[in-house]
This record gives sequence, C-alpha cells and structure tokens, in this order.
Amino acid sequence: MQVAVIGCGMTNFGEHYGNSLRGLVEDAYLNAIKSVDKGFDPRDIQAVWYGTLGSSWAGFPISDYTGLSGLPVSRLENACATGSDAFRNACFAVAAGVYDVALVIGAEKMNDEPCQSLWDYQAMEIWNIGRSMPAVFALRATRHMHEFSTTREHLARISVKNHHHGALNPRAHFRFDTTVEKVLKSRMISYPLSLLDCCPMTDGAAAAIVCRSDIAKRYTDSPVHMIGTGLSADTTYGTITDEQLVGFPTTVKASREAYRMAKLEPKDIDVVELHDCFTITELVSYEDLGFCRKGEGGKFVAEGRASLDGEKPVNPSGGLLAKGHPTGATGVAQIVEIFEQLRGQSGKRQVSDASVGLTHNLGVAPEGTVALVSILRRG
Amino acid sequence: MQVAVIGCGMTNFGEHYGNSLRGLVEDAYLNAIKSVDKGFDPRDIQAVWYGTLGSSWAGFPISDYTGLSGLPVSRLENACATGSDAFRNACFAVAAGVYDVALVIGAEKMNDEPCQSLWDYQAMEIWNIGRSMPAVFALRATRHMHEFSTTREHLARISVKNHHHGALNPRAHFRFDTTVEKVLKSRMISYPLSLLDCCPMTDGAAAAIVCRSDIAKRYTDSPVHMIGTGLSADTTYGTITDEQLVGFPTTVKASREAYRMAKLEPKDIDVVELHDCFTITELVSYEDLGFCRKGEGGKFVAEGRASLDGEKPVNPSGGLLAKGHPTGATGVAQIVEIFEQLRGQSGKRQVSDASVGLTHNLGVAPEGTVALVSILRRG
Repeated sequence: MQVAVIGCGMTNFGEHYGNSLRGLVEDAYLNAIKSVDKGFDPRDIQAVWYGTLGSSWAGFPISDYTGLSGLPVSRLENACATGSDAFRNACFAVAAGVYDVALVIGAEKMNDEPCQSLWDYQAMEIWNIGRSMPAVFALRATRHMHEFSTTREHLARISVKNHHHGALNPRAHFRFDTTVEKVLKSRMISYPLSLLDCCPMTDGAAAAIVCRSDIAKRYTDSPVHMIGTGLSADTTYGTITDEQLVGFPTTVKASREAYRMAKLEPKDIDVVELHDCFTITELVSYEDLGFCRKGEGGKFVAEGRASLDGEKPVNPSGGLLAKGHPTGATGVAQIVEIFEQLRGQSGKRQVSDASVGLTHNLGVAPEGTVALVSILRRG
Repeated sequence: MQVAVIGCGMTNFGEHYGNSLRGLVEDAYLNAIKSVDKGFDPRDIQAVWYGTLGSSWAGFPISDYTGLSGLPVSRLENACATGSDAFRNACFAVAAGVYDVALVIGAEKMNDEPCQSLWDYQAMEIWNIGRSMPAVFALRATRHMHEFSTTREHLARISVKNHHHGALNPRAHFRFDTTVEKVLKSRMISYPLSLLDCCPMTDGAAAAIVCRSDIAKRYTDSPVHMIGTGLSADTTYGTITDEQLVGFPTTVKASREAYRMAKLEPKDIDVVELHDCFTITELVSYEDLGFCRKGEGGKFVAEGRASLDGEKPVNPSGGLLAKGHPTGATGVAQIVEIFEQLRGQSGKRQVSDASVGLTHNLGVAPEGTVALVSILRRG
C-alpha cells in the first residue's frame, strides 16, 4: 500500500468531565493539523473515517465537530479495535486512489453517556453469569498459569513496566511508578487479576492524517509509511477452544497477514504498541505476535526484553494500563505513539533508533474476538 | 475502481419473528453464493464488511453466522446508509489490491431487540420535542409544498408507483397495489405524511460478493462493475439551512462525486434504487440526483417519468416504501436489485435494456444527514 501518515494528534487521556466529546475531537483534530511540519490546510482533507464504540453514532457528528460539513464520513465500530479499523479503512481508500488525503478520528467518553450505559448494560444484563471483562481475561490468565507455569509476578512486571512508561508520558491517564509488590497487593478484581493488572476507564480522542505516499513530502520531510495491515475476527460463542484460552488466534492471523504484506518478520519490529487491557493480554500477545514462543511470555517480560531499553520495547506510551483505554480512540492513539516514536519525538520515553513500528489492537467479548495489526515504517 | 459484483442474495423482507439475525444473515449469504453463475467456493472469500445499525456490534457475530471464523470482518454503521457504506469500504479494499474477493453483508431485525429499543429510545428520549422520524421528513414536505406548489397528490403518486413495483417483487414486505385516494385517506402520521407515505419497520438481510474486475469472468460471464461512489455527511444541528429544508445537499454532493468518478451524467442512468423512507424523500431525491430541476419533483412523478416504463425507472424493487427498510440491509439490498436489473433477472419488474444503475441511500437525524451514491454498470 502506498499510504503515508503525515500528521498525528491526541488529547491527554484521562477523565474529561470538563470537556465534551465534541471538544475532545476538536482538540485531537487541531493537534494533528499542527503536527504537520510544513503546514496543513484542512481543505486538503477529502474524506474522514471515524471510530467510536458507543459515544455517538453515524458519520454526521464529525461533520459538526470538525467543521468539515459535506465531506464523506464513514463510521467504523469493531469492539475495542474500533479506532484501528477506522485507520485501516481510510488507508484502503487512499491506496485505491480514490482520495489523496484523509483524516482518521477515534474518540470515546467512557465515563459519560451513552457509552457508560453500554458498559453497565453489558456488565449487568448480557454477561449475567459473571463474564465481566476482567473475568473474561482472568480465565485466560489462570489457564496460561496452569499450562506454562506463568505467575502473578510475571503479570505484575508488565504492570510495573507500563506504569513506568506512563509516568514518562505527559498525555497518560496514570503517571505514577509502581512495584511488583504493590501490584500483587492491590485489590483483587478477578483472580489472578488485581486492580493494577487492569486498565482504567478513560476518556480521550486521537487523530491521524494520511495521504498518498507520493505526495507525503509536500507536507513533511519525515512521513511514516503504512506498510502492512491485518485483521481477523473469530467466534468463541459457546465453543471456546484450548488455543483460544491461552492466547488469541486472531492476533496470530492478523499479525501474519500484516507481516506478509510488509514483507517483514517479528524480529524486524523495533517498537510496539499493543493491546494491554489487562496484563495477561500483553503477556500472551508477546507470544501471538511472534516475539517469543507460546508459553514464554512470562520469561520475556521478566528478562526485560519488552522494556524501553530492551530488544523489543512494548508500550512505550504506557499502554492501555497507564495511558488509558478510551475504546474508539485507543487504536488511533497507538498510531500517534508509533508515528512520534519513528520520528524521534517521544521525549523521555523515546525508543532509540526505531525505524519500524507495530500496533496491535484487540476486541474481546464472550461471543468472539477481533484483532487488528498495523505495521509502519519511517519514511 | 476495478471492482466487480459477481453475486448477490437477500432474504425476503418482512417481519421475521420466525427467524433470528443469524438465520437471516445465513440465508442472504447462501443466496449470494448460489447466485454466482459458474459456482463459488466460499473459501475464496478473503475479507468481510458487515453493516448493521443496531442489531449487533463488532465483527465477530459474522464470524459465527457465516462460518468464516478467522477472516477479517469490519463493521460499518452510518445511520440508514449503513449497508451502502459497508459495500463502499469493501470495494476500496479490493480496489487497493489488498483482497481479490470480499463479502458484504447488511442485516437488521428492526422488530426485535436490541434494534427495537434503539428506535424506541430515540423516539421517546432524544427526540423529545416531537422530532420523530416522520416529523423530521414532514418538515421538509411542508416546506417543499410551500416553495414549489408540490401537493399531497404528488407524494401519493410515489406511494402508488412504489407499491405497484412492490406487488411485482416476491421479496417485498408489502405486495399490494394502492391508489392515490387510498394514500390520501390513510391515517395521518405527521402532516402531510399519511400512513402510506411512510416505509414500514422491516427485518431482513442482504449480501453481495465483490472481486477484482480482472478476475470476475472466473465466476460469471455477466459481472456488474462498480464504477462510481460518493459519500457526504453534513450537520443540521441547530442550524438547518433553507437548502437543507427542501432537499438533501449531501445527496447532491455524494451523487456529483459518484458521477465524476464514473464519468457519467444523470441522463446516463437507466435504473435507480433510491432512499424513499417517506414519499417526500423520493420526490426531493429526483431533484438532488439531477434527474429534474429543484422544485420539479412533483411534476416528474406525475408525468410517469419514474415509473417502470418511464424514462428513469425509480425503485423497481418497491423501494423502502413497499420492499421495506431493514436499516443495515437496505443499502446492500439496493445493490442486489441493481445487480439483478442489469443482468435482466428481475422478472415482472424488469426495466428494459438497463446497462447503468444507481443506488442512493440516506441517513437523516436531527443532528445531520449522510448520503451515499453508488453507480454500477453491466460488464
């Protein structure tokens, strides 16, 4: 695909009771415009892809929030992978030659209506046999511990690492360091996941501007090229398999598709933003993305290989655990982080000399899972 | 774009209390497979785009319903234009060269949960100052009557025409002829729209299989090529303009974009499926799509120009008024009708010698509108 990212922006992630969904979208959009090195005229935008899980519906809110009334706006929703799918479909339209420049926006107010009711409803009504989000992932954790001698300490190390990264990220929801002991002693939510094994309910928005690769230099001397994408959805409805209990086969499929398109292998990836809604999710994703063998995720983090100065830095932004997880915004914010990392703009959390980055987003519900992987390269 | 439609299928439209969303999707999907002339192996499908407004969420239900577990599934939602946007994004991915063959599915159970609550909630809670769907369109009708001497009889003629077409369509929700007198005397819903000016609440699903144009002949000697697409979203939030009251500027923008891409003009279109959620919507769409001048929509239908044997046959399927309007399915079902019309497979409602068809879908809410136009040509 001949598609480049030329600008990215986001809001701080956190609890935004003092701002509306409209205000969050505006802030992310304006930050993306300001990030374009050589200046950017919003009139260059020809189409918009909007990702939100449940904060609004249809395309027209974006016409209002951005002032881009009359342009095409498509709304994507794909569980927690929503923002990534908005980015993916925008890239397809540009790669098809239909548009030269497109805008991607992801946004969510998790702590306000109508999104809040969505989660309350799911927790209370649909998942009425205890299958809340933490429980859905806790099942995977206990199984992984049983099969591979993974420990709560392994999980806690992921929390410690990502909180440390978050403490270095001015836009993170949580900006504090923690310790393995504190994670283990934090309030138990669903065994073996305690409070600090879980991501917060976060509000925020993120935006990315993409264009045809051959015109990217009009806008910046440092474009980031989109070189691979993969998506996979499966069903776990009533028939969850052993393989689906100790990992996410959709992550395996989506990443293999993205690696193939990018003509790269896991070893070629320099920096990773992956979906760590719970610590166990990051641990199995090391394995599913091909960074280590199945069952070795605990060892991978314990040896520091996923740390900022490790061989495969994972979630330098703080990830969902510390940066936060405003569902529709999350996938686009992963693109923002990789864009800045590949351009050397990440300040205290900068990964040294990264030229290829990978984003991995995941949606999980009792009825199935969906995973989306994107691979980007410094231009 | 080098994209072809090689197969299409749908369920009967109607009240499907005897079938589940899963069953409707299965039926539409299997009918689409069966429609591929030279046979079709479902393993050729590489990715899926799913449109539903509110009957389910995310991509994974489709993994379950179709048995295509593991494939990419994106879910689009764009108000009543949802199904059309799923089709559009699938075409972009194929045109980008990422997939050879993709499946599009649109589905809705309007008369059951969770979609039913969505409409009830909107009617009762959000639109609490009387802005129900009929009222939103009735405002446009009275304004059009005021500006252009359009009459209730003009509107009634659209209902008579589309019900006549629906009576010829075995898959239509309503299969009865009506008269201008009966329309005028039917129960008043929101002046000037009476019961027979309004589309029903319908359940149904529709599916289309698209592929790279250059491999279409492997599957059929009669492919239908996707040659133009246009989408436009705008805001009417608190600031509805005069132009937005007597028509839909988004329809104008979307159709002009599609005509430009197809290198065609309104006069080149042989058959049309357009969004007639209410009779007034069809009337203004004649004007907005460029089939007649602004204000002349009433005359256009009164002269029989939109009839099955007229110069510009509109809604040979019966349209939303008679075939029905299961929101997420509607846009895909419009593709089904045009696909069959261009291949001469429409039986008693066949438009003679049609080689170019247009679909127009529209989403309208108090906060804005969205319009999507696709143009297809016989291969």
